[in-house]
Amino acid sequence: MHMTKANLELLFKPKSIAIYGVSKDTNKIGFTIFSNLLASQFPGKIYPINPKYGELFGYKCFPNAVAVPEAVDLAIMAIPAQFALEVIADCAAKHVPNLVIISAGFKEVGPEGKALEDEVYKRAAEAGINVLGPNCLGLIVAQSKMNASFAANVIYPGNIAFGSQSGAVCSALLDMAGDSGLGFSDFVSLGNKGSINENDLLEIWLNSEAIKVIGLYLEEFVDGLDFVSSKVRLGKEKPIVVLNPGTSEAARSAMSSHTGSLAGSTAVIDAALAKNGISQVDTVSQAYNLLMAYSWLPLPAGKRVGIVTNAGGPGIIASDIVSAAGLEVAKLSSETEAALSTGLPATANIHNPVDIVGDAPAARYFHGLSVLLNSQDVDAILLILTPQLVTEIEDTAKLIVTLSKQSSKPIFPVFMGARYVQGGARRLLDNKLPVFTDIDDAVIALKHMHNYTKYLADKAKVSSLESFKQERRQQRLSEGELFAALAVDQLVPLSEAKVQELLTEFGIPFPASTVADNADAAVSFWQNLSQNLSQPGSQGASQPIVIKATTEDIVHKTEFKAIYTNINSEQELRDKFATLQAALREHTHKEQPQILLQQQVKAEEELFIGLKRDGASNVYNSEGRGFGHILLFGKGGIYTEVYQDIAKDLLPLSEEQLQNLISQTKVSQIIDGARGLKPLPRNALVDVLTKLQKLVITYPELAEIDINPVMLTASECLVVDAKLFVRG
Amino acid sequence: MHMTKANLELLFKPKSIAIYGVSKDTNKIGFTIFSNLLASQFPGKIYPINPKYGELFGYKCFPNAVAVPEAVDLAIMAIPAQFALEVIADCAAKHVPNLVIISAGFKEVGPEGKALEDEVYKRAAEAGINVLGPNCLGLIVAQSKMNASFAANVIYPGNIAFGSQSGAVCSALLDMAGDSGLGFSDFVSLGNKGSINENDLLEIWLNSEAIKVIGLYLEEFVDGLDFVSSKVRLGKEKPIVVLNPGTSEAARSAMSSHTGSLAGSTAVIDAALAKNGISQVDTVSQAYNLLMAYSWLPLPAGKRVGIVTNAGGPGIIASDIVSAAGLEVAKLSSETEAALSTGLPATANIHNPVDIVGDAPAARYFHGLSVLLNSQDVDAILLILTPQLVTEIEDTAKLIVTLSKQSSKPIFPVFMGARYVQGGARRLLDNKLPVFTDIDDAVIALKHMHNYTKYLADKAKVSSLESFKQERRQQRLSEGELFAALAVDQLVPLSEAKVQELLTEFGIPFPASTVADNADAAVSFWQNLSQNLSQPGSQGASQPIVIKATTEDIVHKTEFKAIYTNINSEQELRDKFATLQAALREHTHKEQPQILLQQQVKAEEELFIGLKRDGASNVYNSEGRGFGHILLFGKGGIYTEVYQDIAKDLLPLSEEQLQNLISQTKVSQIIDGARGLKPLPRNALVDVLTKLQKLVITYPELAEIDINPVMLTASECLVVDAKLFVRG
Repeated sequence: MHMTKANLELLFKPKSIAIYGVSKDTNKIGFTIFSNLLASQFPGKIYPINPKYGELFGYKCFPNAVAVPEAVDLAIMAIPAQFALEVIADCAAKHVPNLVIISAGFKEVGPEGKALEDEVYKRAAEAGINVLGPNCLGLIVAQSKMNASFAANVIYPGNIAFGSQSGAVCSALLDMAGDSGLGFSDFVSLGNKGSINENDLLEIWLNSEAIKVIGLYLEEFVDGLDFVSSKVRLGKEKPIVVLNPGTSEAARSAMSSHTGSLAGSTAVIDAALAKNGISQVDTVSQAYNLLMAYSWLPLPAGKRVGIVTNAGGPGIIASDIVSAAGLEVAKLSSETEAALSTGLPATANIHNPVDIVGDAPAARYFHGLSVLLNSQDVDAILLILTPQLVTEIEDTAKLIVTLSKQSSKPIFPVFMGARYVQGGARRLLDNKLPVFTDIDDAVIALKHMHNYTKYLADKAKVSSLESFKQERRQQRLSEGELFAALAVDQLVPLSEAKVQELLTEFGIPFPASTVADNADAAVSFWQNLSQNLSQPGSQGASQPIVIKATTEDIVHKTEFKAIYTNINSEQELRDKFATLQAALREHTHKEQPQILLQQQVKAEEELFIGLKRDGASNVYNSEGRGFGHILLFGKGGIYTEVYQDIAKDLLPLSEEQLQNLISQTKVSQIIDGARGLKPLPRNALVDVLTKLQKLVITYPELAEIDINPVMLTASECLVVDAKLFVRG
Repeated sequence: MHMTKANLELLFKPKSIAIYGVSKDTNKIGFTIFSNLLASQFPGKIYPINPKYGELFGYKCFPNAVAVPEAVDLAIMAIPAQFALEVIADCAAKHVPNLVIISAGFKEVGPEGKALEDEVYKRAAEAGINVLGPNCLGLIVAQSKMNASFAANVIYPGNIAFGSQSGAVCSALLDMAGDSGLGFSDFVSLGNKGSINENDLLEIWLNSEAIKVIGLYLEEFVDGLDFVSSKVRLGKEKPIVVLNPGTSEAARSAMSSHTGSLAGSTAVIDAALAKNGISQVDTVSQAYNLLMAYSWLPLPAGKRVGIVTNAGGPGIIASDIVSAAGLEVAKLSSETEAALSTGLPATANIHNPVDIVGDAPAARYFHGLSVLLNSQDVDAILLILTPQLVTEIEDTAKLIVTLSKQSSKPIFPVFMGARYVQGGARRLLDNKLPVFTDIDDAVIALKHMHNYTKYLADKAKVSSLESFKQERRQQRLSEGELFAALAVDQLVPLSEAKVQELLTEFGIPFPASTVADNADAAVSFWQNLSQNLSQPGSQGASQPIVIKATTEDIVHKTEFKAIYTNINSEQELRDKFATLQAALREHTHKEQPQILLQQQVKAEEELFIGLKRDGASNVYNSEGRGFGHILLFGKGGIYTEVYQDIAKDLLPLSEEQLQNLISQTKVSQIIDGARGLKPLPRNALVDVLTKLQKLVITYPELAEIDINPVMLTASECLVVDAKLFVRG
């Protein structure tokens, strides 16, 4: 959970800055930062710190921060890493609240550097110093006229704040922003982020009136739940754009900083960000385009896209791209089409995509655009211009500017080509309107904005983490012996008996089951079952059963033949029991291995339910870090791995969200009665999912639950094969 | 099949051009074309045709083409559509072999225009005139110094030929080419393409020594089989890039020119292009980037990508993108890593992605790039540059140029940013090397090139259309009555009896079946079956059967309860037979509807096989047009539509290609014995697929075959429910 850092706001608006590392050598980074501060017209005090000089470039120079006569709000270190502890001591003595460590040479160079870095954080924390970096570019804050970085880019003031774990991503974005005039308020290079991290930035930026949109490049999340719940916790809502690479194995091995399995985490992160209305992009350009769109355009109210184009071909391409993105090529009403036709030639296409034809002058764009902006049928507009013989490129740009100002609908101009469209494109940018060369770039940005609009509309329905925690049972009935084996770095399977105890505690239905270590006990279970269950309509006088190895004995050994189904006579049961027990004896080296017996259930559909925890078992407590549990649901049985038809979402999930999750899978079509099949009891399934959520919030030690199959019969939802694992 | 057009080469290298529509009005398109021809320094004769003038801009003007004293190789019409027939007559009288009709106002404006256009083609064909257009931009041929279009762009000479059904796509590409200096040999705007079409262009361009790569924007294929078999037919191999939009429903409705169902065709086209090594792209930018890469870079020998970057973050992003594209982040050998480490600082990452760190000067790029170019571990290189403080952007560009010239491996430079990288990017372009702003743009181009390399390696194995045709049976045993009902615009289902006849003719196994219109006949079928099949290991003394409605009676009525399974006693059979027959009586209004009886088969896996024909039943004959049949294979039963786990490919397919097709599906994992299951008889399945191919080449009247399920038992592959449809 989040702890607010004292005086962090002074990092963004310091009245005075001390710089370690300015010297006469203008090739040194210290000088670059000093000169960038001057160039950005920083209005506060600047104190070069260097014992070798009394004065530098007309500024009085100090041997250390303590020697500075006035308060220092921010210190910047641009001298070799080996001096870090001295700098911390100096800052501590001077009560400097914020320190930016530009220098590299810490954890990224090996164990020694890591030890030094840890010591830096420890001493800084003791002295109450917030550290940005080490191993970073610094930061730029437009409102404070402060370029406290070694990036020499011009920054246009604006309403975007950007933080990055990669200095290079900052450099590339700054260069793009310089070219298009996109304005930023803050640019923060996070570096190794052991002290100041993304969650600190979020707190500052969500609370800032000047900031409309937040962008972040993150290689890992310091505390996932804190990150995704920041907006709710602070009561502030803003679009956030996250670029978080590392879904591929190759990328994961490139991220040396990361330890442990990220495979699970990728699913967690995707689910967590989507659920909390945070846009996740895949490339630097996508991030840039989306920040630009959020910064300059109103949000679309819905997903119906009106397309205006001076060429049929690109209109067709656009229709494909819009549809593939899950948006809709708006169906125009007859009124809209009639309005369009009044100002367009007969050769034009008044159905969407609206083709105003190759010889269209600016006035025809004006007409098409005006009609669509005023139409009830359209939520956003994709305006496509190709540079043809008579195309009035600059005039078209001008009218887009004019009409944009009068409308609350976003217009996404796509000017295809390069040289001939440059002037028009520049005019749009100078008027704070985005422009795209590729249709797909525009549509990707629009898609993210539409998802955000949907999130805003639905977010009232989201169940909060706090209410979820209240579902936690006061008494943890099964606590005592249950978690005896809890280990911090190992998944420990629970025994069948313990699993049944927990399922029973939460009222989760499962077929009649027992464990037995001898054939007589097994036969007696089967006979009882047959007596109790034999009734008209059942499978005859005797009840078939399944016997299998227990979870403890067989976990991760799927190749081992450890299950016999459809056993329906005493002799068969005794034979199979003996065979299985013999095999298990060899496999486990136990003398009398236990065998699990279970009533055989006839499923209409076999499903899979999984739960996976990110973070330690204290993840829901105040000291915990991580995203918590995700729920996975989908097709079960032998097809689970083959089809991977599995939907995921972060806990907690309301009933409506659970219904939604189910609907995201393809197997839900079978549940709902595809092709004339009988619908299956979906609500029984939702009930099981709800109870499983209560189970893990009550016992967050449950790090992984794997139920395959969950059987949906004509009337019930039964958990047939549940494996539960705990971890500290 | 393709018919070569006489004198078409004169369209590309005319010695003399007549232009209808030049006048003193410099705003008219006729003047623009005239002045573009002059500006491009066309070395041949130019004859303005206009009865109103004796002379225009110093050129002698003629009242018509006949009046021109010398031969006219090419005429260009830029006067209103209404004069088209006069122009044709004039050209016919003058024996002009090629005519470009720039003018719009034909089929795109409605039925009257369509009638005029058809008449134009008819008369032109009679007179032996090839028509480009109508409704087009014209054409540009660099080698002939001929800009015979109304696009005023400068074209750099090069080895790319581009043809387009959309003039706007031409305009956009020309503008991009003008900016980056990418050279083209030919630029042809196809317009309505009723006479000269993409297949004519392919013939010219595949045969031209000057052309290395061909690009096409096509809204539909005039003759698919001709298109995809051009390279083999002409014995020429070149990369071809196709942009063919219209996969979405919205796009399809935007393509008013298209009639009939495109849904099927999209699958056909994808399969046909991929199979024949033709690259299919989704956007104009993708087309442009890929043409540039084919034009300027060598092909990669394999899929192992070496990444050199001066920033970790973009390296991670690149790893994700490379992996997602199905390429491989190359694993470097210890030798390569050792070679890298000699020239890199300790902070660098010598594992791929190779991170030469933010302070890398050009020399460090030189080292990293040289080592990877010389390494056996790498097939292609992605070079990422971010503009950081000390980055030597132009020097890095220079060394890329130097090293490119010495290597046979392609280098894909990605210069992230905008302004600061501009100079370096320009230097690459000027040296005919591509440069990308986005990693994904580079990777998409690389992926297509790699697929093409793979195609080149495998193409010897592809079975040719000609050898496929030889598989056609000489005698069409079932021909007579079978195709009595053949209609041109309607699918007609074949009766069960006819289906069984065909399956038997080709030796395709199906379960014992019969049709009966009375219960006694049904009972006798069941009794015979039980006698013949009852043996040790079978399902007891009696053999369960299935009864269902026949295809003719029930086609497209899936909701109607028309099947009873697992019938295993005479009484049950009589009861169900009566029930089904009564239901069908009501449904079909036949007195004694026929019922299909079939031995019940216990499947280990239910599969789906489909065949679909593009074009008419004469598609494989010389006058035929279309792609022919595609084969669809995948998961069957109730999950077919739910999972759409279906692979497709164009006929003919060799055994190896069929194995490949099967492997593309997820259900093949079950067939091959996923999760310890027993593998199923895959070869029996291949045998059925092979025989079905022979069936349709022998009877191409079979327009659609739909088999669901095909049952794979432990030992056999049985066609259980086959629906066959014919169309003319």
